[in-house]
Amino acid sequence: MLPRKDLFDLPEGVIYLDGNSLGVLPKSVEERVAETITAEWGQQLIRGWNKCGWMDLPDKVGDRIGVLIGAAPGTVTMGDTLSIKVYQALDAALKLRPDRKVILSDCGNFPTDLYMAQGLVQTIAKGHEIRTPAPDGVADAISEDVTVVILTEVDYSTGRRHNMAEITAKAHAAGALMIWDLAHSAGAFTVKLAECEADFAVGCTYKYLNSGPGGPAFIYVRPDLINDIQPALSGWLGHEAPFAFDLDYRPGMTIQRMRVGTPPILQLAALDAALDVWDGVEMEDVRNKCLALGDLFIAEVEARCPDLTLQTPREHDQRGSQISFAFEHGYAAMQAVIAHGVIGDFRAPNTMRFGITPLYLDEGDMIAAAEVIEKVMKEEMWRDPQYNVRSAVT
Amino acid sequence: MLPRKDLFDLPEGVIYLDGNSLGVLPKSVEERVAETITAEWGQQLIRGWNKCGWMDLPDKVGDRIGVLIGAAPGTVTMGDTLSIKVYQALDAALKLRPDRKVILSDCGNFPTDLYMAQGLVQTIAKGHEIRTPAPDGVADAISEDVTVVILTEVDYSTGRRHNMAEITAKAHAAGALMIWDLAHSAGAFTVKLAECEADFAVGCTYKYLNSGPGGPAFIYVRPDLINDIQPALSGWLGHEAPFAFDLDYRPGMTIQRMRVGTPPILQLAALDAALDVWDGVEMEDVRNKCLALGDLFIAEVEARCPDLTLQTPREHDQRGSQISFAFEHGYAAMQAVIAHGVIGDFRAPNTMRFGITPLYLDEGDMIAAAEVIEKVMKEEMWRDPQYNVRSAVT
Repeated sequence: MLPRKDLFDLPEGVIYLDGNSLGVLPKSVEERVAETITAEWGQQLIRGWNKCGWMDLPDKVGDRIGVLIGAAPGTVTMGDTLSIKVYQALDAALKLRPDRKVILSDCGNFPTDLYMAQGLVQTIAKGHEIRTPAPDGVADAISEDVTVVILTEVDYSTGRRHNMAEITAKAHAAGALMIWDLAHSAGAFTVKLAECEADFAVGCTYKYLNSGPGGPAFIYVRPDLINDIQPALSGWLGHEAPFAFDLDYRPGMTIQRMRVGTPPILQLAALDAALDVWDGVEMEDVRNKCLALGDLFIAEVEARCPDLTLQTPREHDQRGSQISFAFEHGYAAMQAVIAHGVIGDFRAPNTMRFGITPLYLDEGDMIAAAEVIEKVMKEEMWRDPQYNVRSAVT
Repeated sequence: MLPRKDLFDLPEGVIYLDGNSLGVLPKSVEERVAETITAEWGQQLIRGWNKCGWMDLPDKVGDRIGVLIGAAPGTVTMGDTLSIKVYQALDAALKLRPDRKVILSDCGNFPTDLYMAQGLVQTIAKGHEIRTPAPDGVADAISEDVTVVILTEVDYSTGRRHNMAEITAKAHAAGALMIWDLAHSAGAFTVKLAECEADFAVGCTYKYLNSGPGGPAFIYVRPDLINDIQPALSGWLGHEAPFAFDLDYRPGMTIQRMRVGTPPILQLAALDAALDVWDGVEMEDVRNKCLALGDLFIAEVEARCPDLTLQTPREHDQRGSQISFAFEHGYAAMQAVIAHGVIGDFRAPNTMRFGITPLYLDEGDMIAAAEVIEKVMKEEMWRDPQYNVRSAVT
């Protein structure tokens, strides 16, 4: 059943352990995008919005992602970037709890989530405070003055995973709202948004969902909250009747009010095609395979590379899909590993990240990757100046 | 020189007068996007951000658009949608003039610009007032209490054009800032942003710039203002050092701080390829041809269809690139026109719009289109129920 390597265009001679940053290319994407360009845009032109289903694509694709994250139909829509979707969720949360003044996150959250919160606070919510305790202190930091808790379920650097159900329940018990960033969750393992009664969720699609560079983001809102939300980002495609061209904004019913501008049809088509790789896949199988591959990778690397220190929790329920090791010269070491055909990435200050994506990785890849890492470490290739040249994107 | 029909994939049997809504497909786009998918994403994977220039693409494409709108290199960047870019420009303007409380627009502005202003006011700027006089009353409404004037240069419905230089000068004389929405200007005629000292400009690229459905938007900021702007939408790709993963936002220098999230690479690649059609084209030639074609179209339609009332000003300096006629049964009439091979569109309550795009239209198209419109009107086809079925997108 897994892996399903035949569904992907994998480059020759590469073991790709960076699907947690940019997923690989599903074979179905090229033809779908070409068809969207030539047959739909080229031939139908403006008529494509009706005839080719472009206008409904954000919600249709949202429903497909909903299946992967435990959300009911009609509760997820697509568009913009994760940063914008974070802003929308935070703005909505602050308006739903106007009497409170604390945004609680953690210092392991992905920076753009914190940056968007900072921009919101400096612009809109000037009396608000953003608290960022250590990840393992978040649960205890949920107090009665907290407006909203915003966390990325899986730490982008260490791979540590929060307990979504427990933290959501604790936030609700304190009267706070809960936003989950699923960037490293959607497509990585089973997510049960509705079951744990999360208020909002956001995520990107270019990691485990393989939508390609800059693919659109998603947002989920708990259905009983949606019609109380007054969006700050009140764009025309979130309007109740966009083509009435009224001068006054009236939010659309249900999740459609979280749309903003004209949807990016080429990237949505790529994502829609990319989602086909999940047909017939049980997420539990993906998760079990991911944990087994991760355990194997940890064992192989630890046995071969005593200078690398595991950062990811060993406990299955406390980790996501990536395995991270700390190493003082991690940047250069990772460049050397990449130069030898194993693509992972580096996160400052000292983390070497390896993404485990069971749809297109197997046991042989884990062992072969560990062999390359061992060679780099044993030969101290990280001392080589050629691997110390910094690029714009690390 | 013009038209350059050979550069575009035009459907057989169609006269396309809706390039002001969704531009046609340049032939160069399909191959470029396919290459971006298969050779770049597929083969380079995460390395594409450095090796394929993805990270610099928003600014590189921004500079190409800058050439078309009279903006210096380094003053335009790409991303998100027009709605988001309007929000960024308004947010910046309000922070630069904190002592004033009036946003001045006009009631002919495209609704999303007004909606975004409403969202901003209701969320951030609660004491602010949005004034929307009639378009020809805007200049007189610029008073000393105005924070910012935000106008779409060309009215999406009537095709009426504001005098950018005069209104900008008047706004500045009153101590206000000036935002121009160039959705119907960029690629339609010569724009002189820097020369008229506009403070901000925004626009979409899927109309006259032919980037395809949902192509990315652009934003321009006057270079002497940019480093004073504290963005509300403070995403990680607007950070001074995105890959330092600092916990605190520090805005990037120059226009880069107007970036928000991860750029949509597939759609940016489509746009970059689409911009090739402008190589060797003088915008003055486009404008002159557009006015001549528009004059011809007006004359032909008026001579044949006495029931249609011209809404677009006849004066060349007061109109953009589209020609609009009012007709009580305009919706159904336009559906009939489209069914007979001439694609324009309808805007409530009674406007039939026809976009004039000289890159791919000629005199013969104008006359042939007028013949079809005449036939629809003479035969009163708008009475036919089949043309009265409403679609999601009009």
